[in-house]
Amino acid sequence: MNATRRNLGFIGLGIMGAPMAGHLLAAGHRLEVHTRTKSKAVALLDQGATWCGTPADVAAGAEVVFTMVTDTPDVEQVLFGGGGIVTAARSGLIIVDTSTISPQATRDFSARLAQHGVALLDAPVTGGDIGARNATLTIMVGGDTAAFEQARPVLELMGKKIVHVGASGAGQMLKACNQILCALNILGVSEALALAESSGIALETVIDVLGGGAGGSWALANYGPRIARGDYAPGFMIRLQQKDLRIVQEAAQAAAIALPGTALAQQLFRAVESLTGGGDLGTQAMMKAVRQLSNRPPPANDAPRGA
Amino acid sequence: MNATRRNLGFIGLGIMGAPMAGHLLAAGHRLEVHTRTKSKAVALLDQGATWCGTPADVAAGAEVVFTMVTDTPDVEQVLFGGGGIVTAARSGLIIVDTSTISPQATRDFSARLAQHGVALLDAPVTGGDIGARNATLTIMVGGDTAAFEQARPVLELMGKKIVHVGASGAGQMLKACNQILCALNILGVSEALALAESSGIALETVIDVLGGGAGGSWALANYGPRIARGDYAPGFMIRLQQKDLRIVQEAAQAAAIALPGTALAQQLFRAVESLTGGGDLGTQAMMKAVRQLSNRPPPANDAPRGA
Repeated sequence: MNATRRNLGFIGLGIMGAPMAGHLLAAGHRLEVHTRTKSKAVALLDQGATWCGTPADVAAGAEVVFTMVTDTPDVEQVLFGGGGIVTAARSGLIIVDTSTISPQATRDFSARLAQHGVALLDAPVTGGDIGARNATLTIMVGGDTAAFEQARPVLELMGKKIVHVGASGAGQMLKACNQILCALNILGVSEALALAESSGIALETVIDVLGGGAGGSWALANYGPRIARGDYAPGFMIRLQQKDLRIVQEAAQAAAIALPGTALAQQLFRAVESLTGGGDLGTQAMMKAVRQLSNRPPPANDAPRGA
Repeated sequence: MNATRRNLGFIGLGIMGAPMAGHLLAAGHRLEVHTRTKSKAVALLDQGATWCGTPADVAAGAEVVFTMVTDTPDVEQVLFGGGGIVTAARSGLIIVDTSTISPQATRDFSARLAQHGVALLDAPVTGGDIGARNATLTIMVGGDTAAFEQARPVLELMGKKIVHVGASGAGQMLKACNQILCALNILGVSEALALAESSGIALETVIDVLGGGAGGSWALANYGPRIARGDYAPGFMIRLQQKDLRIVQEAAQAAAIALPGTALAQQLFRAVESLTGGGDLGTQAMMKAVRQLSNRPPPANDAPRGA
């Protein structure tokens, strides 16, 4: 199937969607695209993609349609809103939603689409914009097994680890677990670095000495050095992390699971959001909230944004 | 200096101290030892160590004396109590305290010993009993630079990463930072696995799929599989982690640094301590507290201890 030229669609060409769609084109597939701001599609159109005025138009000619938008209501709009996919749905269509949205809403959308013979796979990703550009994303898929097998060769063009987690919503649940880990790991990094800083230990020493041991994490290795040099440019923006943590808590509420550490991390991210431009900073700006809490000034090398 | 046979002492031959002392003997140094329970010294005495009835007796004949005991009062007793090191102190003696204790108390002890011409290096370790046995510990040293340089060749017999962090207490402060990281990383692992469990996602899938990404940590890779198979045997016991977190909060209080995440982790470890034998479980038993909080029963494969 990988060698066959397929009719694909992609809706949502932001910082993640555009490079992901590019891999589909580069592999020789026919690609129809739509996104809210047409200028974001220009590079793909130059490479041979076809513009569609609505999600329905994308769906009309495609076997598999990918969506990569921000939040649950955006997916709902693309699927069921005016000019939405469902209005052009034909039986056998597979929709692969790579957005990070609510697992419960995903299950609801999936059931509604099934009435039209349309399969919805939830397929949120991790790996960030770098993973999107390099096709090294991890893609966590929930939904029908047969639909997954049909979509898998195309997913493999965009990621290096493609996992079918379970039924509809399971991909989103696993992504939610990932966001819990990320939130608490950066909280640990921030509190550890705040204590080190208060006693005059160079943050680089903390990262170097502790990074290889039992306290080590991706967050310490990757965000630690950025904090040490006062760099809060986003790898992943706090406002998107907050959107994801809201989804986490909604899922946890539905499952009656208390997540007190995650809740604390949300509050501290909110404290960063209270700074001008704070929500647009990277999640490593959690460090600003921990400093703020103890009324400690940012160090001299801290970037001025959000300070 | 490494090639020279030196007169060394070791006080505290528990699960960490005994193998550490063994490396000194194995390297050909003369070793005098003392520990509360003499039976713990038998293997070392068989290998050629000399028994001393008191810490003072150990100090009388040694250039460098190592201590590896549990808590701040234990170190104080070994240094300044009846039969303590200071009663036999001669100028030039170097004491290397590898215990994890209070940074502030360390600075106080160091100042008191300096009046006798005795140098105290704080040198807490990470790497656990496996690191102690394999001489792969990370050793974080605070105190006088000249004393550090004299002790370094011997420290290199016990660890693979020996770092002079700064003045007296700096080694303990860096160890405190490590314990913050460990506490919050295992909290993240526990909350993520609890949410996964509630939605029927296999914990092994969480560990496999998320471990290599931005949510990855030593805790997820090492404690995750133990939680998945219901294994709460201690790598590091909760009651020792709690002792260390008390030290962290004392140090943070002295520095006026609020550590809300660390405080939450302490409370959840306390919830595990409320179970019979809970304090003797490994820190991965944080998972029990997170389950308990939402009134979820332990899975069938959970080991009965502390359940």
